[in-house]
Amino acid sequence: MDNRFANTPEPPYYAVLFTSLQQPDAPGYAQMAGKMVELAALEPDFLGIESTRGPDGLGITISYWRSEAGVAAWKQKTEHLAAQKLGMERWYEHYELRVAKVERTYRGPAGRPSL
Amino acid sequence: MDNRFANTPEPPYYAVLFTSLQQPDAPGYAQMAGKMVELAALEPDFLGIESTRGPDGLGITISYWRSEAGVAAWKQKTEHLAAQKLGMERWYEHYELRVAKVERTYRGPAGRPSL
Repeated sequence: MDNRFANTPEPPYYAVLFTSLQQPDAPGYAQMAGKMVELAALEPDFLGIESTRGPDGLGITISYWRSEAGVAAWKQKTEHLAAQKLGMERWYEHYELRVAKVERTYRGPAGRPSL
Repeated sequence: MDNRFANTPEPPYYAVLFTSLQQPDAPGYAQMAGKMVELAALEPDFLGIESTRGPDGLGITISYWRSEAGVAAWKQKTEHLAAQKLGMERWYEHYELRVAKVERTYRGPAGRPSL
């Protein structure tokens, strides 16, 4: 499968939905984002990530986690806290972050339900 | 607030996470997508939508719903079924759809937790 899709297991698992509008100028953002993905991938409960950003600066990143505890552990990770601070101070005009429990999944175009 | 963000209430509520990779050529897609957003917004349980697509064709759309029953009702709506069929046949190389229950939310840059 295309590696821009997260290869997640059967639900239930957790998703962190992060929608953000970037400042017109966001120096250092791309590098930090790449580093954060690398670090998140080292977390034991990390399952995968899907991320995209349109030409208007609106981005959506969904990271997937085995458990709620895994989400909480990543949130408090030292390097991630530093990135969060920079995001608030420099990079984002606005963001919404939602933690959700994935209950059902489908994929396609074959259209076969996985549950 | 910027209307590209969904103005969702306090959780719990439902989110439909739709990650898709578009065919290089997707005739009629933009028009249909706009029409589907208009129709979804008429559903009693619809709360809002956030959507973006990068230059590589990877798109993420998250729609928010008051209840699981609202998600199911929209899935079965006649016009939406027709759009799903076209999506499978013509527009998407691949997609992943996940239904999730939003449990906690944060927003920023102020960084104040809403719960």
